[in-house]
Amino acid sequence: MVIDLKQCAALIKEHNEFVIISHEHPDGDTLGSAFALAEILRIMGKKRVVKCSDIIPKDFYYMTDSYIADDVTDPFIITVDVADEKLLGNMASLYGGRVDLCIDHHVSNTYYAKNTFVEDRAAACGIIYELALELGIEPNLYMRECIYTGISTDTGCFRYQNTTPQTLRIAADLMEKGIDSKKINKLMFETKTKSLLHLELLARNTLEYYFDGRCAIITLTQAMYKESGSAEHECYSITALPRQIEGVLVGAVIKEKEDGTFGISVRTEGDIDASAICSKMNGGGHKGAAGASFSCSYDEGKAQLLNVIKTALDGLNQ
Amino acid sequence: MVIDLKQCAALIKEHNEFVIISHEHPDGDTLGSAFALAEILRIMGKKRVVKCSDIIPKDFYYMTDSYIADDVTDPFIITVDVADEKLLGNMASLYGGRVDLCIDHHVSNTYYAKNTFVEDRAAACGIIYELALELGIEPNLYMRECIYTGISTDTGCFRYQNTTPQTLRIAADLMEKGIDSKKINKLMFETKTKSLLHLELLARNTLEYYFDGRCAIITLTQAMYKESGSAEHECYSITALPRQIEGVLVGAVIKEKEDGTFGISVRTEGDIDASAICSKMNGGGHKGAAGASFSCSYDEGKAQLLNVIKTALDGLNQ
Repeated sequence: MVIDLKQCAALIKEHNEFVIISHEHPDGDTLGSAFALAEILRIMGKKRVVKCSDIIPKDFYYMTDSYIADDVTDPFIITVDVADEKLLGNMASLYGGRVDLCIDHHVSNTYYAKNTFVEDRAAACGIIYELALELGIEPNLYMRECIYTGISTDTGCFRYQNTTPQTLRIAADLMEKGIDSKKINKLMFETKTKSLLHLELLARNTLEYYFDGRCAIITLTQAMYKESGSAEHECYSITALPRQIEGVLVGAVIKEKEDGTFGISVRTEGDIDASAICSKMNGGGHKGAAGASFSCSYDEGKAQLLNVIKTALDGLNQ
Repeated sequence: MVIDLKQCAALIKEHNEFVIISHEHPDGDTLGSAFALAEILRIMGKKRVVKCSDIIPKDFYYMTDSYIADDVTDPFIITVDVADEKLLGNMASLYGGRVDLCIDHHVSNTYYAKNTFVEDRAAACGIIYELALELGIEPNLYMRECIYTGISTDTGCFRYQNTTPQTLRIAADLMEKGIDSKKINKLMFETKTKSLLHLELLARNTLEYYFDGRCAIITLTQAMYKESGSAEHECYSITALPRQIEGVLVGAVIKEKEDGTFGISVRTEGDIDASAICSKMNGGGHKGAAGASFSCSYDEGKAQLLNVIKTALDGLNQ
């Protein structure tokens, strides 16, 4: 059933024990939502426990350090920022088909829960903020920092396209009531691990330009992950880099997988369609960002990719 | 004379011809303020011309493209975002001692103008926004984009410590009324020139860690500027990098100058005082960011710097 904010608040009032589940590979928005909701429930005198498929990155210590789980026996199951049950990771086996309430901000939500509240104007944490106010709970410092973390990380610190006037106004309210935004921004946006820095260096050394600088390609190999001590999921900043270069319309990163095959991430500007490029390599995605993979040799796959990119760029001139 | 917003508006109403001057090496805030103010004056039917000591970077084309200067004969002189007359650059010889009104947000303002309006709660552009409303001018798309540029660049897109609730609320208003924030954020925060990218790569290759990874040092040489085709003033991202590395408490960049001597930029975390470190090298600055220079050899100067940094780090353990 699709429900609204008031019904969402009513469901929470009705129950006394809760399990709150974030999505796998947790980010700031799903964790901020989970821990802010847990704090709302604690203040309301209810029992709750937060669950996540994967280890919580240590940078979020200020959300996890003071949290102590309660014992729950017959809990009401809530997911936060989880568009699809598949994203519960290894929690799916335990909670799949049993979610009572899903609070989410993805229009792609699959409505797998008994009750679903989706609101796409803000980060998931923005919904939790409104829920707190609806429940008459004034967010304390801890809750404000959880919510700010979600909102700021979801929008790349108010830089991405999904930033809305509402996002900015909630952040303004949180800041006015008091948060350590210096601490949070430093941890979330201004800190690089040594291993990522090393991987970035190795990656940047592979940067090649093609087609008068309109295409830039970076290559990541398993040897580079090993040499730098970093993991594939850390490399977001590298995936974004080629397209950030002035004049580049198509940026691609070719990533060697553990089994020796290769993945491709393509990011494009303006009229160039990344999903059209990737669909010719048996992949797909969105207009500005898409992916594909190949199991032939690196040289062959790259030649094929360059060929497809050339066709896309040639299409611009017609 | 120190004046308030109403008096500021009154002075503008009283006059008909204006020169608006930005600071030298112009950034988004001074230019956004200058062009937004010019647009206010245009709408009010007044004549105005914008002046700047240095060339306006081409990324600001959306502010400059539609601007056409008027002829002015007996103008009222306004500076925007200029804390000190020295910052007028080569405009100082023409307008020094003659500024009628200074609109600024620096607490360090030297009150060189006949009338000064300083308000430190927001970017300089935030003041221009309030001035527009005070004058009864509803900001049009062009003016909104100028003001958003100033506010977002001044705060590192709402990431720096100077971000206030007011900053965020003005940005929310501008976004609600309509701006192309995607275009502006891409140009201001998501684009790297090829030459800077090349310089960053050369610089990262020089990265060295000292004292159990608590200190990181990068070296920039004249040969690197030449090889990459970049200029010294472009290297802000490099100056910030060493301190961004996880575990680093003191980040330093040693920069070879054209005359063969060296400058040092030091950034620190927590209790380490950058200005104390730099004062021992005959420099100075703030607690978190300071600078110094040396004219001995690179090896000697670096050894001296490392010695000072070691003392500062040792002081932490006592």
